[in-house]
Amino acid sequence: MRETRVGETRVALTPDAVKTLVADGFEVQVQSGAGTASHFTDESYRTAGASVVDSPSGDATFRVNAPTIEEARAVPEGTLHLSFLSPVLSADVVKVLVERKVTVVSFDLVPRISRAQYMDALSSQATVSGYRAALAGATYFDRFFPLLTTAAGTIRPAKVLVMGVGVAGLQAISTARRLGAKVRAYDVRSAAKEEAESAGAVFVKLGVTADAAGGYARELTAEERAEQQAALAGEVANADIVITTAAVPGRKAPILLTQVMVEGMGEGSIVIDMAADGGGNCELTKAGEVIEHNGVRIVGLSNPPAQMGAHASFMYANNVLKLFGLFGAKGQIAPDWNDEVVVGSTVTVGGKVNHAPTAEALGVSHEPIVAPAKEAE
Amino acid sequence: MRETRVGETRVALTPDAVKTLVADGFEVQVQSGAGTASHFTDESYRTAGASVVDSPSGDATFRVNAPTIEEARAVPEGTLHLSFLSPVLSADVVKVLVERKVTVVSFDLVPRISRAQYMDALSSQATVSGYRAALAGATYFDRFFPLLTTAAGTIRPAKVLVMGVGVAGLQAISTARRLGAKVRAYDVRSAAKEEAESAGAVFVKLGVTADAAGGYARELTAEERAEQQAALAGEVANADIVITTAAVPGRKAPILLTQVMVEGMGEGSIVIDMAADGGGNCELTKAGEVIEHNGVRIVGLSNPPAQMGAHASFMYANNVLKLFGLFGAKGQIAPDWNDEVVVGSTVTVGGKVNHAPTAEALGVSHEPIVAPAKEAE
Repeated sequence: MRETRVGETRVALTPDAVKTLVADGFEVQVQSGAGTASHFTDESYRTAGASVVDSPSGDATFRVNAPTIEEARAVPEGTLHLSFLSPVLSADVVKVLVERKVTVVSFDLVPRISRAQYMDALSSQATVSGYRAALAGATYFDRFFPLLTTAAGTIRPAKVLVMGVGVAGLQAISTARRLGAKVRAYDVRSAAKEEAESAGAVFVKLGVTADAAGGYARELTAEERAEQQAALAGEVANADIVITTAAVPGRKAPILLTQVMVEGMGEGSIVIDMAADGGGNCELTKAGEVIEHNGVRIVGLSNPPAQMGAHASFMYANNVLKLFGLFGAKGQIAPDWNDEVVVGSTVTVGGKVNHAPTAEALGVSHEPIVAPAKEAE
Repeated sequence: MRETRVGETRVALTPDAVKTLVADGFEVQVQSGAGTASHFTDESYRTAGASVVDSPSGDATFRVNAPTIEEARAVPEGTLHLSFLSPVLSADVVKVLVERKVTVVSFDLVPRISRAQYMDALSSQATVSGYRAALAGATYFDRFFPLLTTAAGTIRPAKVLVMGVGVAGLQAISTARRLGAKVRAYDVRSAAKEEAESAGAVFVKLGVTADAAGGYARELTAEERAEQQAALAGEVANADIVITTAAVPGRKAPILLTQVMVEGMGEGSIVIDMAADGGGNCELTKAGEVIEHNGVRIVGLSNPPAQMGAHASFMYANNVLKLFGLFGAKGQIAPDWNDEVVVGSTVTVGGKVNHAPTAEALGVSHEPIVAPAKEAE
């Protein structure tokens, strides 16, 4: 399906992914123009074996972003739908899909277990975001990143501080390192130290940790946050570029950089805020805008994966193939309800809401999927 | 002096450079706001020992760009002026300065000898341009530069072709290599092979060479150019990003990329044209604009050093200190007319035009500097 989010360039299936599905016996329809913004032409989809149509209708639809309410009303009843739905945030859309007895599968809910990493679109898109954040840092900064020894003087390497060492933070670290910057990194999860170091950063220790289940950071208490921020202020003041990556899925982004901390930064410093769409990790961030405050520019990156539609789509489409592979094969849709990844990522099926927080948001009863008993062998 | 060229961010002296001059016994005036765009505040100039004034007047003025005619009229009579004047292109400005008996020194004319590399502002600014060109390539491209092996698929490295391996080309090569791209490079000067290779590129051999004096390329004949372009077309078609850097100082940039060659490039490919201000190395280039042609985006970089004002100014100011050092010391202006760098870079002195092409452009007689006889020892 063609994406309708403003500024979106990604598409859920690349021509290569279409080829794989067709080889597995599926008939594939692609909405005309769906790949244009990421340089996949209608012609390349046709060559891959898809039919290009204006209004696709099939047993399964794949999207990157959640459909709008209008688009949800057009999803055929009883079919399968895969996207980044953020179901709690999109309760009104889910409501329509529940009424239409659509089987809704959301990439946000894929369990973070080792086997599911191939379906982990949050990670694949975060890889793109981290790379783009480091590039944005180098682009907005009016000095070099690398150490250069020239006849016109010696250029000292830029000092980059990465806050939040998840997948995006790690990619930001290694990209900034590639460009020759000196990188320091901070994360509330102490386990991030080893990963940050192997990506080439010096890990900053502040004494506050917030390890939580599922590989995410838990939210800090107000007191812990104050302590963390005081200790961070010195690190921030010493950095030329601060890249913040702390996004908690489906929640408002935590504030890591206060106005006072920004005011402690040097003339010409840069903040790249990757959590801008969730409200920002910096108090001053405006999503999709570059603002200047006291000689510091704060870049609110909006939907960074869309800045690199071709490769972001390539990775997303691979995630789609892997996740869809648990819901169907050989031209047939047949979800394996005994698979924890299938059950975990399914929001709703047959008009029943499997995902507890979504049921709560919709004010309906939570009806978990009951797997059919396995046949005796 | 504050620069008045649109989009300019550079300044001819940094606070550090001011400090050096003050320590050498000079009194330094800085025009208020001159460093603002490259994040050097008036306050930082004051701290360095300069007085910040609205209309500086001294025995020597330093600029990045040529003054406008109005600005030239304000240069005090009989003083020294240093800038990137491109005297042949700025004949009307030089005319005013000749009338005012200003000693005009242009960075374009610094002889390309080993000893003068410290004054070579063409090179220092080209270093900035090459770095920015590679960054622009990575930013506009909608795929990754580095090879990445991820759970969502393997990302192949981007293929970059750098055309023109001068200082800018070499910096573009090493920056693209840092980011993980595969880089090929081409230059009409066969001597560029070794330098390109040591920067990390594979050197493309086409059979046409154009070695010329002074380290520049000579202009190719029409026939040679046709041969070169035919052979290059295949290289261009195979590249994801083409960076062109072929600028001949004071002349229109040669066309290296024809429309037909661009049409042979793949959907989503990028051209970064560093010679945009000189008309462009690509037939389709528009200076300061990004145009799309057949799925290929052509980025006409305008004044790329101004994208990184702080470090470009740092390097330029170091060049200024070195070149000015031949024209004065210990608080006194006293050019050494026996120095070939002094003579070579001086356009006009005491109302006489020393630089032959400028004299021709002005339609006045060429009166080379006659060095005073050295005192017998």
